[in-house]
Amino acid sequence: MPDMTDNSPGNSRTPVTVLGLGPMGQALAAAFLAAGHPTTVWNRTPGKAAGLTGAVVAASAAEAVAASPLVVVCVIDYDATDAILDSAADELTGRTVVNLTADTPERARRTAEWAAAHGIDYLDGAIMTPTVTIGGPDAVFLYSGPRSLYDDHSPTLAALGGTATHLGEDPGRAAAHDVALLGIFWTAMTGIMHAFALAKAENIAAADLAGFARGISDLLSPSLDALAANVDSGNHPGTFSNVTSAAASLEHIIHASERNGLDAAVLKAAHALARQAIEDGHGGDDYSRLADTLRTHATR
Amino acid sequence: MPDMTDNSPGNSRTPVTVLGLGPMGQALAAAFLAAGHPTTVWNRTPGKAAGLTGAVVAASAAEAVAASPLVVVCVIDYDATDAILDSAADELTGRTVVNLTADTPERARRTAEWAAAHGIDYLDGAIMTPTVTIGGPDAVFLYSGPRSLYDDHSPTLAALGGTATHLGEDPGRAAAHDVALLGIFWTAMTGIMHAFALAKAENIAAADLAGFARGISDLLSPSLDALAANVDSGNHPGTFSNVTSAAASLEHIIHASERNGLDAAVLKAAHALARQAIEDGHGGDDYSRLADTLRTHATR
Ligand SMILES: NC(=O)c1ccc[n+]([C@@H]2O[C@H](COP(=O)([O-])OP(=O)(O)OC[C@H]3O[C@@H](n4cnc5c(N)ncnc54)[C@H](OP(=O)(O)O)[C@@H]3O)[C@@H](O)[C@H]2O)c1
Ligand SMILES: NC(=O)c1ccc[n+]([C@@H]2O[C@H](COP(=O)([O-])OP(=O)(O)OC[C@H]3O[C@@H](n4cnc5c(N)ncnc54)[C@H](OP(=O)(O)O)[C@@H]3O)[C@@H](O)[C@H]2O)c1
Repeated sequence: MPDMTDNSPGNSRTPVTVLGLGPMGQALAAAFLAAGHPTTVWNRTPGKAAGLTGAVVAASAAEAVAASPLVVVCVIDYDATDAILDSAADELTGRTVVNLTADTPERARRTAEWAAAHGIDYLDGAIMTPTVTIGGPDAVFLYSGPRSLYDDHSPTLAALGGTATHLGEDPGRAAAHDVALLGIFWTAMTGIMHAFALAKAENIAAADLAGFARGISDLLSPSLDALAANVDSGNHPGTFSNVTSAAASLEHIIHASERNGLDAAVLKAAHALARQAIEDGHGGDDYSRLADTLRTHATR
Repeated sequence: MPDMTDNSPGNSRTPVTVLGLGPMGQALAAAFLAAGHPTTVWNRTPGKAAGLTGAVVAASAAEAVAASPLVVVCVIDYDATDAILDSAADELTGRTVVNLTADTPERARRTAEWAAAHGIDYLDGAIMTPTVTIGGPDAVFLYSGPRSLYDDHSPTLAALGGTATHLGEDPGRAAAHDVALLGIFWTAMTGIMHAFALAKAENIAAADLAGFARGISDLLSPSLDALAANVDSGNHPGTFSNVTSAAASLEHIIHASERNGLDAAVLKAAHALARQAIEDGHGGDDYSRLADTLRTHATR
């Protein structure tokens, strides 16, 4: 018979509080509930817990915090996070905050310092997969901060599913990975939207382009290790394709876009970067050279 | 015993000419040679046929063209293509040109008109996969132009491997797909380079980021059909994530990048687009809304 008073982490009876019920906060709370954790939730705007059967809805962040030893925060940014934590600072003392909100490494370090000054145990984290993955095998979580804290709470956090990686003691480390990785995601998503817009302008339905677009997307993953090796070694051979060829390609896309009356600002920025690499004498190099160009020409 | 004088398309004895021996032209010529086609090659700068055992190297484009009923062109852009074809216009009359160079739909249509005026059969094409795929199962080719011409020559073009799709009679149709799809590729590649640069600035080796980056890249393909359906229907529900959240995310990436002295122009252009969508009242919509924003705010 389970000891109902055992609040040790990992026991499915460990109470958990979730602050923030946007799409992601709701998914996190649902996963804790599904794993059997007594789950208390709070959101700035009421009425967001409708789908969370069994959750206890608190009237304030402070009240929600008081219900659990582990408090998960997931809101839009650290301005929101900090405001919420500050409003519940007294109740948070002696508890653990796991902050799954996305922001910069700098802000993560600052919030960690604030927590330390208030006697709050603090683990920073980042979620690398969409809401539908939460609680299932495909979810990906990154954490950073005190390793012992991560070890203590990872059995409870396991309710969120998927794979979790502790990246180090520096609380900014998860956010550093997050901003880099989200840069890929949002840049690629913007490219996809541009492709659909351009296709539409050329009387190609987005649904018809999607199949071919899948082929293009699927080229990215297999190339990452080789591109990373180029970047780490500073050696960009350019044997199979090069920056000059890519710049020509970008020019065609920009021309075709502008002829169709589309905003091409993202592509123009990429083209300007490629042109800079060519000016620097790297036209014959692999496109991976641009990771250097971004560092050496920051003032453009 | 094969009839050595049978030059009908698809017979592995059909002679083929390849004009342009950049990385892609070399891969195409190698695939024709591997399939047994007598292959004549030419490149503006000599010395590029060294790896093409068995190829006949011509001294001029005109001489190369005269050797084969089917002429494949693959150079950097249509300025180069047009110059090469023009230099061999007389010899090309009565033959078929398959142009696998990438450029805009407009240029493809123009070159098709030029070919028609010179009594040259013309098929436009685009290659959607890297050189290493050519001749193997993963190559992807798009074609447009006269269907009968495609049917005649596809048995010979099959030597290039992979899958080929005829997209219609409009010679610009393959290029229209090409520019849209390459837009995804180069935008995403630029995002990847930014991620590696930002990781490096945060003391994360590109090789260490690559594994997580694979996870991010792998999110793209499965989302394409739903995003395309949004774009085609004009309905962008925003249930699981929205433009406002994406804009916040882009802001963090830009801040972290600039703090690390990186050029963030590509991300800023994406952020400006998201901001525009929010200003237009679409902050609660899916990111797919941006395909519309790109069309309605071209003058930014
Ligand atoms: N959705 C995804 O697929 C996904 C995937 C990976 C990571 N993430 C990350 O997860 C975090 C949450 O994302 P999300 O999709 O749930 O939605 P979101 O739109 O980023 O955030 C909405 C949440 O933030 C709250 N909020 C905003 N401003 C606030 C303030 N000043 N004070 C208090 N609360 C405030 C909202 O409360 P109100 O309801 O009162 O406005 C709501 O709970 C973000 O950092 C996001 O980058 C999301
Ligand atoms: N490489 C890939 O992975 C890949 C993948 C898909 C599609 N493509 C497309 O395939 C085409 C060829 O690409 P590539 O990688 O082989 O290299 P590229 O750098 O785009 O093109 C190099 C070729 O163009 C020739 N060229 C350039 N300017 C010329 C001019 N004014 N007159 C005559 N020839 C000229 C070069 O001749 P010289 O040697 O004399 O300079 C060389 O043969 C491009 O449209 C590219 O977008 C390439």
